Amino acid sequence: MVNGVKRYLLTVSYDGTGYCGWQRQQNGPSVQQTLEETLERLLGLSVRVTGASRTDAGVHALGQRAHFDAATGIPAEKLPFALNTMLPPDIRVLAGLQVPDSFHARFSVSGKTYRYQIHNSPHASALFRNLSAHVPVRLDEKIMHEAAQALVGTHDFAAFAASGGSAKTTVRTINQISVCRQGEELLLTVSGNAFLYNMVRIIAGTLIDIGHGKLPPESLQKALDTGDRLALGVTAPPQGLTLMEVRYPPEAFTQE
Amino acid sequence: MVNGVKRYLLTVSYDGTGYCGWQRQQNGPSVQQTLEETLERLLGLSVRVTGASRTDAGVHALGQRAHFDAATGIPAEKLPFALNTMLPPDIRVLAGLQVPDSFHARFSVSGKTYRYQIHNSPHASALFRNLSAHVPVRLDEKIMHEAAQALVGTHDFAAFAASGGSAKTTVRTINQISVCRQGEELLLTVSGNAFLYNMVRIIAGTLIDIGHGKLPPESLQKALDTGDRLALGVTAPPQGLTLMEVRYPPEAFTQE
Repeated sequence: MVNGVKRYLLTVSYDGTGYCGWQRQQNGPSVQQTLEETLERLLGLSVRVTGASRTDAGVHALGQRAHFDAATGIPAEKLPFALNTMLPPDIRVLAGLQVPDSFHARFSVSGKTYRYQIHNSPHASALFRNLSAHVPVRLDEKIMHEAAQALVGTHDFAAFAASGGSAKTTVRTINQISVCRQGEELLLTVSGNAFLYNMVRIIAGTLIDIGHGKLPPESLQKALDTGDRLALGVTAPPQGLTLMEVRYPPEAFTQE
Repeated sequence: MVNGVKRYLLTVSYDGTGYCGWQRQQNGPSVQQTLEETLERLLGLSVRVTGASRTDAGVHALGQRAHFDAATGIPAEKLPFALNTMLPPDIRVLAGLQVPDSFHARFSVSGKTYRYQIHNSPHASALFRNLSAHVPVRLDEKIMHEAAQALVGTHDFAAFAASGGSAKTTVRTINQISVCRQGEELLLTVSGNAFLYNMVRIIAGTLIDIGHGKLPPESLQKALDTGDRLALGVTAPPQGLTLMEVRYPPEAFTQE
């Protein structure tokens, strides 16, 4: 890149409730658009932001990542403080870093962690209504956790992909998956190298069905074996999902 | 009471962000008013609700309690389900119980537990912005926890009362107080027989000052000894405060 233009990586957290998702769209404000407009006001030039993950409407992030190119005198580590004075309070930039020109927020990703939160109580939650899905019937988190272990490893996750995805292959690797209870909150945490469109929400919906006996625990294994979407439960609602972390290999930050 | 009128106790949770507080006021919708109007629509008669605690604007509840008198054929345990279909999603009724005529949501209280949540991170929280106070400087939760123990017991808490309270005595008993860290969240939990107006928020504000060395750990003891409000920190903002539980003695539910 020329003329002092450098590449910057931001770590971004947002409450997705008020947005049509990460990506720019016609039908409402997106996180990407809000971030781009704020960067343009701060830097006084046109900025295009590239996110690691195109989160859906209502989906949240604690550790989304996004890169942009700009020539600016503002040190990368000062960008969060400058941006947070101008952003709406449901979007916070948590970190800024200058990265090599070869770094790409999406293509350089080596892994991601998502969390799906279920409010498992007879009545919905007033306080966490936008941060969790409500399941009134009692779920067995131990059966859910055990059943989920079938997904660990490298598999063809074709059955776990909503139509509308653009992936060339449906083979993915899940490194770790767990379900644990904290009082009335059930937390599903899943880490992998990459995820198909709606994959975590389909896993969550299926585990909910397994957790109250509507589907047998073997359903996940069967879906891996057959590729049959119909072996699985419905796609769980977006507000339970939070993108927790996006990981990059160390060399992504050093190679020129 | 006559004509089949009975007393009912509700357990109520709410996100206080959108309300001017528990109590009916001129300057905006209150939780009490919303609950009364919903009960009136459900039961078809005028209802007056009495809450255990008059939480301020922006303060939340997981376990507020409120009683009302009505003649209704709806069983008490069905009230939450009926009310929740009509209430806005930031108010949820979690339980309903028929209680003796002598029961009073406020005067029968034997104890309450509050929690104050601090987001202790350089940047504010996008997800919990309405459920926590933001403190960017690093707080020492161990010093805060230790300092707070001075409050345990029966003391004159005159220094801890905001003006505007109507208490006849400022003697209160704190049974338990703790400060613990869960990642970037600091949780102050305090249980006592009763609390003065703004008492928990003044304790929270003082512990924040103690946690980053602006006030010495002995400040709480000094304020107890002298009754001097100026020995303490500012009143911490309302959005960090949640009324967790209201307790009653067993005999309140049985005596006629």
